[in-house]
Formats: sequence, C-alpha cells, structure tokens
Amino acid sequence: MHERTVGEACEYVYCRPLKFELMNIPLHVTKSFLPPQEEYVARLATIWKTGQLTNNGQLVQLLEKRLCERLQIDRCLLVSNGDAGLQLSIRALKLNGEVITTPFSYISTLSSLLWLGLQPVFVDIDSERLTIDPTKIEQAITSRTSAILVTHVYGRPCDVVAIEAIAKRYDLRVIYDAAHAFAVDYLNQPLPKSGDISMISLHATKLFHTGEGGLLVANDPELHEQVEWHRRFGHRGNDAFHGVGINAKMSELHAAMGLCVLDHMDGIIEHRRKTCEAYRERLFTAEDRVQLLAPVTGATENHAYFPVLFSSEKHLLRAMRIMRKEEIYPRRYFFPALHRAFPNLTGEHSLPVAESIAERVLCLPLSHGTSEFDIERVAAAVLGR
Amino acid sequence: MHERTVGEACEYVYCRPLKFELMNIPLHVTKSFLPPQEEYVARLATIWKTGQLTNNGQLVQLLEKRLCERLQIDRCLLVSNGDAGLQLSIRALKLNGEVITTPFSYISTLSSLLWLGLQPVFVDIDSERLTIDPTKIEQAITSRTSAILVTHVYGRPCDVVAIEAIAKRYDLRVIYDAAHAFAVDYLNQPLPKSGDISMISLHATKLFHTGEGGLLVANDPELHEQVEWHRRFGHRGNDAFHGVGINAKMSELHAAMGLCVLDHMDGIIEHRRKTCEAYRERLFTAEDRVQLLAPVTGATENHAYFPVLFSSEKHLLRAMRIMRKEEIYPRRYFFPALHRAFPNLTGEHSLPVAESIAERVLCLPLSHGTSEFDIERVAAAVLGR
Repeated sequence: MHERTVGEACEYVYCRPLKFELMNIPLHVTKSFLPPQEEYVARLATIWKTGQLTNNGQLVQLLEKRLCERLQIDRCLLVSNGDAGLQLSIRALKLNGEVITTPFSYISTLSSLLWLGLQPVFVDIDSERLTIDPTKIEQAITSRTSAILVTHVYGRPCDVVAIEAIAKRYDLRVIYDAAHAFAVDYLNQPLPKSGDISMISLHATKLFHTGEGGLLVANDPELHEQVEWHRRFGHRGNDAFHGVGINAKMSELHAAMGLCVLDHMDGIIEHRRKTCEAYRERLFTAEDRVQLLAPVTGATENHAYFPVLFSSEKHLLRAMRIMRKEEIYPRRYFFPALHRAFPNLTGEHSLPVAESIAERVLCLPLSHGTSEFDIERVAAAVLGR
Repeated sequence: MHERTVGEACEYVYCRPLKFELMNIPLHVTKSFLPPQEEYVARLATIWKTGQLTNNGQLVQLLEKRLCERLQIDRCLLVSNGDAGLQLSIRALKLNGEVITTPFSYISTLSSLLWLGLQPVFVDIDSERLTIDPTKIEQAITSRTSAILVTHVYGRPCDVVAIEAIAKRYDLRVIYDAAHAFAVDYLNQPLPKSGDISMISLHATKLFHTGEGGLLVANDPELHEQVEWHRRFGHRGNDAFHGVGINAKMSELHAAMGLCVLDHMDGIIEHRRKTCEAYRERLFTAEDRVQLLAPVTGATENHAYFPVLFSSEKHLLRAMRIMRKEEIYPRRYFFPALHRAFPNLTGEHSLPVAESIAERVLCLPLSHGTSEFDIERVAAAVLGR
C-alpha cells in the first residue's frame, strides 16, 4: 500500500530451513529478535488478570525496575517511542532558541527539534568517534543557545567529559540521543549517567526492543518527575495540570515484549559479539578499500551495528550493486548527513567530516539470526568478489 | 510508583464471581473491553510468521482496510495514539497562527496546539449539543486564524454544516477531534466524511480500541498522503524526506488487539445501548436534580459515554460523595473547562456555557461489563438514595 523503505522497514521474515543452507536468501540489514511466542503469551496473562492495557500498568512498572537493575541506573521512564522521548526531553528541559546538534545521526535527532520549533545548529563530527567534535562546539554557541543534543553513534560514546565541561561553562543543558547505546558503559560508569537526559530507542530493530518504544533516563529526580508528567498529558490528579504534555505512554503490550526480550539479552549480545568478530576477521585484510572502526577507548561495546567505511562513495556504491544482485540489503546508515536533509529549513552548511563519513559508511547485516554463511556472503560482496 | 489518576487510568480489574452478586465491588467509570485471550494469541501468529513488529506491517494494513469497511470511508491511517494524530493533522495541514477551538473537550485537543506553538482561541459551546457554538465562531476569526479544531463531544456531532460553511467563507481548515465518535453517522453519512481531517482515539478506554492508538481520516487523497509520511519521520525512500515528520506508527501488537476487538463491536455497542437505556429509565424521573442529554437530531448514537448534568455543582459533588462511599467512581469528564487549564498560557476568558456544563457534568460508569446491579447502585447514588 505504502512504499516500504529500508530506512524504516528493516525487519522481515527470516526462517531458513537447514536443507536450504547453501541457497541465497534475502539478507537485510537487521531483523527483530522475537522471543518464543509462548514466553510472550505467558507475559500477557498479567494484562488479562489486571484488565489494564496502558496507563502505567504493572508490566511497564516491572520493566522499568528491571531496566534500572540491568543498566545500573537509579530511575528511568518508558515512553511510546524514542522520537516522542526526544520531544519530552526538549520540553522537560524547557529548551528554546538554538540547540547545538550533530549532522551524523538518524533523522529523529534533528526532526524532534524542528517539530517543536527550535533552531538546530550543526557542529561537525570527530572522524574517529563519529560523534560531535567537542573542539568545535564553543564557536557555535551564541546567546540563544540553550542546549546540546548529540548522539552516541552506533553505541560509540560522545566525549561526554569535554561536552559537559562546555555545557557547565555556558550553562547549557545536555541531551544524549543514546538510541543505539543500550547497555554501554563508558569510563567505568553506565553511559546514561552522563548529561541531563539520555534517550534509548526501543524500536523493533534495536539491540534491546519493545516493538515500538523508548527509554528516558533523567538522573536528577526533579527532572525525572518533569519528564514523567510530560508523558501523560501533564496530568496533576484528575482536574489539574502541571503543564502542557502529550501522550507518550508505553502500553502493557509493548512492556510485555520488552520483559521477554530482556530475558534473552545476554545471549543476544554474545551472538552479536561473535558475528562482529567474524566480520572483522574476514574484512581486516581489505583496509585499502574498507576501514573498520576501532572501539572508543574506555567504552564497552554492545555490538548493535557493524558499520564499515569505504575509501570512497564510488566503492560503496559498487559494493552495494554487487550485494543487491546477491539479495543482500545493507543500509546507508546514516545518509544523507542531517544538514542535507532539509536545507530549506536549516540552511546550507559545509561539514566536511560528516559529509565524508555519510557518503562512505555502510552498516552490514547484523542480527540475532546472522549465520557464518551470511557473514561469508556479505564479506565476499564487500571485498568485491 | 506514580500517582494514578481517574483522568488517565480508568481501566481496572473487573471480575465478579456470581456468588458475590450482591456485594459492592469498586465500580469505575469505564474498563477496557478485552477479547478472549486465545483470539489475541491467534492474531499474534502473523507477527511470528512475518517477523515484523511495526513499520506498516500486515496487521496494521488489514485493520485499516477493515476499518474503512466498517466506517464506510475510503481511506484511513492508524497512528500511535490520538494525541499524536492531532499533531500530525496540525502539521499536515500546515497550520499556523491562531486556531479556533472548544473549551469543552479532553486536554489533548488544547495541548496538541500548545505543544506545537499554535495559539488556541476559545469559542463557547452550545448548551444542547455541548459542541462549539457556530454562531459565535465568526467574531473570533482574525487575519491570523488558520483553522477550526473542535470536538464531537461524547460522540455528539458538531454542527458540521454551519462550521464548514464558515470555514469555506474564510478559507480555514477544519479538524474534528472525533476521539469519542467511532461509528457515528450524521445527516446520513459517516461523521468522518466531514471536515479536512477527523481523529478518532483508539485508547484502551474507548468504545473501539487498540490499547493505545488513534485513527486519522483525511478525505482528500493528497492530504491523506501528507499525513501518511508525517507519521513515519517524513521518509521519502531511504535517503530523502518529504518534510519534517515524527514517529507515530502503530505497532502490530496494537493492530492485533484492534482486529480482535473489532470482531466484537456489534455486541459491545448493543450491550452499551441497553445499559444507557436502563440508566435513562431509572434517572428520567429526577429531572429536577439531573438532566439527561437528548440525542442530537440527525445523528446515530454509539453509546460511548453516559453523561448526566446536575442542576448545580453542589448537587454533583454531593452525589460524588455518596458514590465514593459506595466505591463508585464516575468521572468529571470534562473538568475543568479547557480555558481554565493553563490560564498563564491562554489568558483569562469568560465562557459561561462551557463553565456551567463543566461544573455540572458527570460521566457514569459504562462499559461492556456493566450489569443491572451496577446500574441500580449508580442510579440510587445519583438520586441521593
């Protein structure tokens, strides 16, 4: 009915009977981890028992508790999706005017600002981390700047120490788009302990997911409360309001999915670690053509993505052509760089590092079902064989 | 953990074994209809088969198709919730400046405008319909007015003929908050055929629901397309964008719930019709104290709510006190009138009809499980016995 884009619709059927082991079967950039159906059905029993489908039900509360334990944080809030989570963060922090942001992220990082009428100000990225270059932030600060909204790309932490020193100096708020950064530690502490608010996406295609969903971590208890009422229309009891909010509630149906997926997280991460290792083994010899990213010093890896950097866009497009013939569908994630998405709204900019990375980066197929055979096929295509 | 309000959390456990028939059990304003769990589980099979949890999956597409058939409309779009649906409508119609709206609705009608930086302009309501008074609209129109956003309260249609004549005369867009108006016909056509866009809430507490969810009906095919890409981040293929959008996608988990509930709609509406009739029979003699609402001429009724109007707020509060002792929890729906919700943002207004109605209206318990016994208890309390 509607056009389905890889950008959005990177889930698909993925069942390969053993006897077809040697057949090529379409291989997409990712697929959702689905727990055994009976585990999900068992979780649903709570809904039929309580009669409650949404509005901060038992399953949402339980999942928040279990996520606090898993992520070693004091408090968190489940929301309807990561995009709504960014909007809630912007409003809870009362941002206005300009917000410094990154050109290298998913569209939602930028569009959440534009949706709410804020002015994004792009700062180029660091060519190693692929996150905002803190040495370039200060020159972008004006009297209208209220915050920094930046992304831990592929779960690779921003230089939070440098960013927060600047934020403190200029009295700016900091929101981390931690959409990719579930279960990442940095400098010996959980990454969401950085900044004012971190938003972790729990979309179906994410490492840990609830189908649709998001998680907000606001470390300050008062800010946590601000986010909490913003997600439920601003209600203060029945007949009064703290302020203007939206409906960003997660339902029990999604929380039930999250509880099931969480039970499998150790196995999911271990499988992905092995897949990434196998990709590395097969691709490290091709450094004239593709570059693998070195881990960020001091950060743990969650293996949410396996990006490779081609030496040029021409080489990337050539590899994609080979893959397409093989029914392999990697993803140009992220392309275009965000300052090129809505030039009529954000103006023309030259951000050479982000442009160069966006033109050359490709995320290879990686999911819980990725097999040795898949890895071989993909690596061969990347290597142009 | 967080305060639960009746305003939000009007779902609850409702199982009464027959042997307790004569015991008083807490009775809330509504509870969600839950289909037999096995029917829901059967629908889930599609998700485990396709591997797809969201992003316009098969179940969302099937539910849209079935809703078009049920509501006798040409096209519709499922979204994450009604509130997001209002935001999409506002953006798809490119509204700006001032929007004329009603003071008598749920908070979302107003807050969706404020969230997006538009200026609400209140016009008082008609004392019979409880919807906006069209005779007062023209005097509120200024050069900055871009639209009229009004509510079919309790499923009672606005005077769409008068409203649309004004809209045409002044070149204004019209959005109907049809949150309550599932399956209502007016003047021999489906109500969502009126105006530019109608938003029907599919929240767990609604007549027809998907747990969390909303339905948008834009009659014009081009406008339908605008809404469609707004709900999925504005994507135009992988690497380009139509414009700035959000994530307002409904997941397959919610669409599965909707498909199950839809199978039971005839029975749900019939049960509610009988409950409303029984309330009427018991309460019509008390017209000195409580007034029942006459149906809107030309409109079918969906029996989504059973509001009663007390002769004064004092009488309403007295009845509520009696009910509280009996563990009956009706709802002041809507209170306060919306122009009193955020006076610091919207200014002080005098809207005597809306104020009078908001102070005196109470929605009585009404759901698929409401029994004769419940009706007796509630009616006795309303009558002060």
